[in-house]
Amino acid sequence: MAPLAVALGDPSGIGPEIVAKAWEARGSASLPTFFGVGDMRSITSIWNGPVRRIDSPAEAARMFEEALPVIQVEDAGEIVPGKPNMAGARCSLDSLELAAGLTRSGAAGALVTAPVSKAQLYAIGFVHPGQTEFVAERCGIAGTNAVMMLVGPTLRTVPVTTHVPLAQVPGLLSVDLIVAKARATERGLSRNFGIEKPRLAIAGLNPHAGEGGALGREEIDFIFPAVEALRAEGVDVIGPLAADTMFHARARAKYDAAICLYHDQALIPLKTLYFDEGVNMTLGLPIVRTAPDHGTAFEIAGQGIAEPGAMIAAIRLAGQAAGFRCRA
Amino acid sequence: MAPLAVALGDPSGIGPEIVAKAWEARGSASLPTFFGVGDMRSITSIWNGPVRRIDSPAEAARMFEEALPVIQVEDAGEIVPGKPNMAGARCSLDSLELAAGLTRSGAAGALVTAPVSKAQLYAIGFVHPGQTEFVAERCGIAGTNAVMMLVGPTLRTVPVTTHVPLAQVPGLLSVDLIVAKARATERGLSRNFGIEKPRLAIAGLNPHAGEGGALGREEIDFIFPAVEALRAEGVDVIGPLAADTMFHARARAKYDAAICLYHDQALIPLKTLYFDEGVNMTLGLPIVRTAPDHGTAFEIAGQGIAEPGAMIAAIRLAGQAAGFRCRA
Repeated sequence: MAPLAVALGDPSGIGPEIVAKAWEARGSASLPTFFGVGDMRSITSIWNGPVRRIDSPAEAARMFEEALPVIQVEDAGEIVPGKPNMAGARCSLDSLELAAGLTRSGAAGALVTAPVSKAQLYAIGFVHPGQTEFVAERCGIAGTNAVMMLVGPTLRTVPVTTHVPLAQVPGLLSVDLIVAKARATERGLSRNFGIEKPRLAIAGLNPHAGEGGALGREEIDFIFPAVEALRAEGVDVIGPLAADTMFHARARAKYDAAICLYHDQALIPLKTLYFDEGVNMTLGLPIVRTAPDHGTAFEIAGQGIAEPGAMIAAIRLAGQAAGFRCRA
Repeated sequence: MAPLAVALGDPSGIGPEIVAKAWEARGSASLPTFFGVGDMRSITSIWNGPVRRIDSPAEAARMFEEALPVIQVEDAGEIVPGKPNMAGARCSLDSLELAAGLTRSGAAGALVTAPVSKAQLYAIGFVHPGQTEFVAERCGIAGTNAVMMLVGPTLRTVPVTTHVPLAQVPGLLSVDLIVAKARATERGLSRNFGIEKPRLAIAGLNPHAGEGGALGREEIDFIFPAVEALRAEGVDVIGPLAADTMFHARARAKYDAAICLYHDQALIPLKTLYFDEGVNMTLGLPIVRTAPDHGTAFEIAGQGIAEPGAMIAAIRLAGQAAGFRCRA
C-alpha cells in the first residue's frame, strides 16, 4: 500500500503538533507509513523531533522509521501558534489540494486531513462549506454525495442532515434522502471496513421514536417508508429506534452504523463516549479520507498539550480502510 | 429517617421483580429501609424470597433485614407477567396514590415509583400524562412545575421540553421557561444533593450552539438572555454550550447539572453512559420522588432477567436526598 498523505491543516492550529505526536506513536499504535503535507516550519517551530523533507510520496517509506517525512508546500509566512492568518489559510488549502491530488492519483494510499480554520478559508475566498466538499469536488463527486460518518471504537454514526438549524431538520427529511444516506453507509461499511453484510439502525426523530404518531409523524411519514424501501433492496436495517436507548453498549452491538437525522443526534453519543478519539470518515468518494473529529483548538496551540488520540485513530482507520479496498 | 415507600408499578411488568432484587441487594448496595406498596402476589408469583405484609410504614424497619415488607393494596386480579390488564392498572394507580400519600404525610421518607403501563392507565381514565404529574397534583403542585431530572453516577440532565414532537421544540422555547427550569434545577441540587453552590450548564439547540447565528438563532434569542438573567440572580451558569462536546468526562466535571432543550438531548447522553442505572428524579415537589428511568419491559417480565440497577440507584438516591433534606 502507498504511504498515507496527511494534510497538516492550519499551521497555527494543533494540526502539526498532533501529526508529529502521531509519528512518535507510529510503533506503539501500529500506524501505517504516512507523510505530512504542509509547511515544515509549522512542525519544527513547536516540536524537536526529526522532520525530513521529501519530494515524492515514494520517499516516505525509506525514512519513516527515522523521521517524519513532509512534502513542503509554499511558505506559510509568519506562523504564530493560536493566531491564524490568511497566509496560513492559503498554506492549509494548498496542503489539502496537494494531499488530495496525491491520493486521487494513487501516489498516496489514503487522505487524512488535520483541522483548518473555516473562518480564515472563507476570508481568502474558499467557497466550499468545509474540507469534505472540497475533496469531493476534486474527486469529481458532488459535495452533497459525500457522506460524513463519525467513527469511534464501538460506534459509527451518520447524520442525514448536518450543519443546519435544528428547526429546519424536520422539513429537510425525505424518504429519498434517508435511503440515499443509508445506501452510501452500507457501501462504505463494505468498502472501508470489510463488513460483508452491514447492519444499519435508523434513529427516530421524535421522543420515543414518535410513539406511533402521538409525539410526531416523521417516523410514519419518512422513516418507516425508508426502512421498507431499504429492506426491499436487501439492506439489513432496523428502525426507527428511540434515539435515547440505541447508543448504550448492548444496543450498539446490534448494528454496524447508526443513521441519525441531525447533527447532534449523531455527534452527542459519539463525543460523549469517544471525545479524544473520534474520527470523521467521508464515504461516497473514490478515495479513503479521514480526519480527527475536532477543530484547530487555537486556544491550546503551541503548548504541547494537544491530545493526538483522534489523529492517531484517523491515520490508523485510513490505513485499514485503504487495506480493505486493496484486497477487494 | 422514615422508611421509603416504593410503589410496585404495573403488577405484570418488571417492577415487582426489580424491587425484590433491590431488597436482596440492600446490604451490598447500602440501601435505606424501604417497603413496597402494591399487591404482594405480584412479587410472590415471580420471586421465592421472603415477603412480609405490613400495615403501616413504621413496621418496615423491624423486619427489613429479614423480609421485604409490603403494604397490600386491593387484589390486582389475575396477574400474568407480560400481559397487562385494567385490574393491574387500577392496582398500580392505587399503589401510587397510597405511596405518595404516605410520603406526603411524612410516614414515608421518600417516594420511589416502579414503571406503570401508561396505555392501561389511560384506558381506565387516568388523565395525567404520567406518574410525575399525578404525584405533583397530590402534592398541590401544578404538573408543569414538576421538573424531571435524569441522574447517573457522573451526569445529571434536565430537559426543558419533554414529550413533544421535535419540530415543536424551537417554538416552545422562551427565556422564562429556560430560567424557570434552571432555577428549579439549582434549588433541587441544593435540597436533594446538598450542593451548596450548584453549577449549571445550558446546552445550545443548534449544531455548534448556532455558531453565532449562522446555524440558528435560538441561542441568541433565548439562551444567551436566559443565561444573563440567571447570572443577574447570582446563579452559577455557563452556556449555551455546543451539545455534542459537553457530555464527555472532562466536560461533565465542570457542572452539576446540564439544562437541555429537548428530550433526546437530555436522554441520549444519560442513557448512552448509564443505561442500566439511570434515575428519574422529580424536582419542585415538597417530597423526594425518584424512579428508575426505564419502562415496564413487559417483553421480559416474569423471566427473572430484569436488571435491578436503576431501581437500586433510585432507592439509594431517594434515601440520600431525603437525608439531605432532613439535615437542611
